[in-house]
Amino acid sequence: MDEIRSLIGRLRGKRIDMAGRDFLLTWEKTPDEIEATFLVADILRAMRERNISPRVFDSGIAVSNFRDNSTRTRFSFASACNLLGLYIQDLDEGKSQIAHGETVRETANMISFLTEAIGIRDDMYLGEGDRYQREVSKALDDGVAAGVLPSRPTIVNLQNDIDHPTQAMADFLHLAHHFGGLDRLKGKRIAMSWAYSPSYGKPLSVPQGIIGLASRFGMDIVLAHPKGYDLIPEVVEMSKRQAVASDGSFAFTDSMDEAFEDADIVYPKSWAPYEVMLRRVPLLHAGDRDGLKALEKEALANNAKFMDWECTEEKMKLTRNGKALYMHCLPADITDVSCEAGEVAASVFDRYRDDTYREASYKPYIIAAMVLLGKFASPADLLDGLLARGKQRVYGA
Amino acid sequence: MDEIRSLIGRLRGKRIDMAGRDFLLTWEKTPDEIEATFLVADILRAMRERNISPRVFDSGIAVSNFRDNSTRTRFSFASACNLLGLYIQDLDEGKSQIAHGETVRETANMISFLTEAIGIRDDMYLGEGDRYQREVSKALDDGVAAGVLPSRPTIVNLQNDIDHPTQAMADFLHLAHHFGGLDRLKGKRIAMSWAYSPSYGKPLSVPQGIIGLASRFGMDIVLAHPKGYDLIPEVVEMSKRQAVASDGSFAFTDSMDEAFEDADIVYPKSWAPYEVMLRRVPLLHAGDRDGLKALEKEALANNAKFMDWECTEEKMKLTRNGKALYMHCLPADITDVSCEAGEVAASVFDRYRDDTYREASYKPYIIAAMVLLGKFASPADLLDGLLARGKQRVYGA
Amino acid sequence: MDEIRSLIGRLRGKRIDMAGRDFLLTWEKTPDEIEATFLVADILRAMRERNISPRVFDSGIAVSNFRDNSTRTRFSFASACNLLGLYIQDLDEGKSQIAHGETVRETANMISFLTEAIGIRDDMYLGEGDRYQREVSKALDDGVAAGVLPSRPTIVNLQNDIDHPTQAMADFLHLAHHFGGLDRLKGKRIAMSWAYSPSYGKPLSVPQGIIGLASRFGMDIVLAHPKGYDLIPEVVEMSKRQAVASDGSFAFTDSMDEAFEDADIVYPKSWAPYEVMLRRVPLLHAGDRDGLKALEKEALANNAKFMDWECTEEKMKLTRNGKALYMHCLPADITDVSCEAGEVAASVFDRYRDDTYREASYKPYIIAAMVLLGKFASPADLLDGLLARGKQRVYGA
Repeated sequence: MDEIRSLIGRLRGKRIDMAGRDFLLTWEKTPDEIEATFLVADILRAMRERNISPRVFDSGIAVSNFRDNSTRTRFSFASACNLLGLYIQDLDEGKSQIAHGETVRETANMISFLTEAIGIRDDMYLGEGDRYQREVSKALDDGVAAGVLPSRPTIVNLQNDIDHPTQAMADFLHLAHHFGGLDRLKGKRIAMSWAYSPSYGKPLSVPQGIIGLASRFGMDIVLAHPKGYDLIPEVVEMSKRQAVASDGSFAFTDSMDEAFEDADIVYPKSWAPYEVMLRRVPLLHAGDRDGLKALEKEALANNAKFMDWECTEEKMKLTRNGKALYMHCLPADITDVSCEAGEVAASVFDRYRDDTYREASYKPYIIAAMVLLGKFASPADLLDGLLARGKQRVYGA
Repeated sequence: MDEIRSLIGRLRGKRIDMAGRDFLLTWEKTPDEIEATFLVADILRAMRERNISPRVFDSGIAVSNFRDNSTRTRFSFASACNLLGLYIQDLDEGKSQIAHGETVRETANMISFLTEAIGIRDDMYLGEGDRYQREVSKALDDGVAAGVLPSRPTIVNLQNDIDHPTQAMADFLHLAHHFGGLDRLKGKRIAMSWAYSPSYGKPLSVPQGIIGLASRFGMDIVLAHPKGYDLIPEVVEMSKRQAVASDGSFAFTDSMDEAFEDADIVYPKSWAPYEVMLRRVPLLHAGDRDGLKALEKEALANNAKFMDWECTEEKMKLTRNGKALYMHCLPADITDVSCEAGEVAASVFDRYRDDTYREASYKPYIIAAMVLLGKFASPADLLDGLLARGKQRVYGA
Repeated sequence: MDEIRSLIGRLRGKRIDMAGRDFLLTWEKTPDEIEATFLVADILRAMRERNISPRVFDSGIAVSNFRDNSTRTRFSFASACNLLGLYIQDLDEGKSQIAHGETVRETANMISFLTEAIGIRDDMYLGEGDRYQREVSKALDDGVAAGVLPSRPTIVNLQNDIDHPTQAMADFLHLAHHFGGLDRLKGKRIAMSWAYSPSYGKPLSVPQGIIGLASRFGMDIVLAHPKGYDLIPEVVEMSKRQAVASDGSFAFTDSMDEAFEDADIVYPKSWAPYEVMLRRVPLLHAGDRDGLKALEKEALANNAKFMDWECTEEKMKLTRNGKALYMHCLPADITDVSCEAGEVAASVFDRYRDDTYREASYKPYIIAAMVLLGKFASPADLLDGLLARGKQRVYGA
């Protein structure tokens, strides 16, 4: 309990303006807001571990809008919202009829009369996911202004074409716990590296989310990928500027070995080239199967040139004392386990498996924190109140 | 709070017999029962706005049985049941295997052991939707009588072939608020008019629901549609009788202009001709794709003769002071927005958009009221108790 | 209330070790554990009937993992978990991509961070359903040991290739109530008989579950089926041993008439021959449609030789005083109702319909009991506490 009180005390010191707002991109949030999110996540987790229920809603709807399949994020979102007392209602639009304009405006209002939070995952179409989330956001603002909606549901970006904030924030809460505090990340070398995968079309949002957040903490970032596997240029440029501003650094290399050299943390993960993702969008919209097949074939052939971009034991030996922390958003393409040749050697993954599971375990609490901060203007008071209420999450446990 | 107490006081004056019964057709309910439903909806909405939780169930299941797609009604039903504390479990039968007879009897019992409410939407097959709901109703009665079910779940008709009571009731609660009271509807002229749409097969239940309810309040109803676009004759006849009994009137015209003349309210909305819906049923049952294609082609060709049945600015000028209230159950076919030519001009819809959203916002509360009245014999006492309990819906808000 | 206290008193006398464990096969549970499950089910049902809420979770997730379709079991699981306060999140893997090995391990952890219970139905593949459940179980043990999971979700077998414990336990709770106590089952003659069905591929788990549980209570079991319609040999052998140990008996016959002779209870139910189920597995895995068609044709032709294995009025007359209790897990293939020729004559089924519905009504409470006993080490104390808390399930009822 003292630990929780201490965390609430630290939260009280943060200057934040998150209530009534959405959580779309980490770089739109101030350092205090990022830290507040970590603090609330830790507080909610600690409360649950001590059997104190953080349920704040006696009823209420959380809408999950997944425009792409996802078991893990779906469970994280459901667990997070349920912890706060919300009922999850899926909005299934069907992949074909991606709505725009007036339809978005209308649907956003129709699903929000009794809704407190909306989680949106929309990462398939480069240039559209973030835009869609902002369309919904604007529609909700209008709905509140017109008196149509009694309150503003908060939107949580569950992955779009630009950022994957729930993943990146969970990853960094994991790092904070692993290294003993956020302030310990300063000066740590993190290798965000492309890795080979026998599939294509993996979104850019994970590596972009990682460099977009790592550059806030004074870390030495090395971004590594084969030539041509670029991320969205604007996100890379922004991350460079952020790295400088936070007294860190940002380097690029097209050698996985070089990236791993003396790294404290490695994040080897496949993604599709920016340019391939761009070319894919009109094909997806047109439902052009032949075009998609052809693009896939070309992309996979290109991938195959870089099969040595695998996180092997040899590469791990290059890292600081051979003991860098391996990270992955899961599921990983594990050589000889989930595929013939993939992102990571089986023995490496095996050694870090529990770490990656622990990494994932922060996501529900990060999401719950985002929702809570989007809904309550005085989160420290609220959490103090919940402590005082002392309601058991599990009766008699 | 005084407002809520005053509404409860008015509710106490109503003589109703709704507990243990279903809400299938508005015209099966007495005037007091209709008004009680409006009152409870207003009370629940006011409670939620004042952060008083109307949650009456600590646990319990609400079954949603949608035999046709529906995002909006699905969200309304989920929001309503969640507000009362129920968990929503979908009963997905698959469209192909529409059950009858013994299967309905058995399924109705199997899903109801711990169930409090069942929402059913079944509007595809003319002559069958209402019948199916009554089959379920009878099966539940038998289950209770046999001691198989501990209590009687209440059925809410979420749209069938005859009526769409949650829509019509929400529409009229909107009207009551718009005009300052149900009693203000007396003598108001409402134009329930067919409108052109580039699709076919839209159900008859919305216009039938509107004339079936408008005729209870002494309104002057004008039903307008091109020749051949008839509604179910029995529903029209019944509405005429009701109109006379309530000191209102009921007129028919095959001119949209004539209908709009001096109207206080216009409800321009497309539907399929009764005769087309009848012919469609055996084709749907037989899965006769060619037959359905041919019928669609014929029906669309017929629709195309009436493309001037559009709610334009010119037509709106015909209404009382050019300022009739435009209504729609949404989504509307908006010319140049959702289609090339549709039910309503973009500028008209735009002016009334927020009104139509507000209209829709009543539906969750109407559904919650129907469930609550179907489950509790003394709703005024119950609601007084909830006020006294004073539980916050959102903790610390 | 005295009745509930008396049941809790009896529960207190049972020596059980169920907390932190799964409920996979009834024959892995001690007699005290079986009886404790019945007692908790009866207590939960009595509490609900007296409007005492047995909700023990203020929040928490129950995962439903159905690898086969099931409306009834889905509703039972949802109702049970909701009664205890859990939110049900479906894990839909898609039938094609049945996971194994590392994927199972990872998914089991990813869905369990805030999960209290996992219900798994996996009955399609002989030799695999039970194995899969044990894989998940092991993964959860590892997750807890590694500190990845804060607590151990309890697994409930909602039907696998070997046993259907929620069905069998519900069936026997029904028998206990019908005959006035579990101890009254001693010496009762139960005919678990194959019956004709115009479909094939029905799982073996129901008859196996019945003989596996009946043989614990000193009953005289007669297993009847045409030659070739064997169950899993090991399960039959184990049941024989259990029957001897409980002072009962176990006989086999290939005559339905002989099985019905003087039976107190008859359970006529179709299933596929063990050998057919075995041959089906590689065909299913290979997605070999032609092979499956051929096997179905062969199996149905074989079934057709035994159309006289129908539970008719004539056969019922052979039972004790012509009044044996007819049982079925539902839905039954009823001659002239759900098919031309099936497992049971319409008049027989009709007479026992309410009994079969009542039989089914125990399942939600059995599942809730399994979850509760898997989560709480001192269930009697817990239930006493819930009584003392006295929270109403339905407010003001």
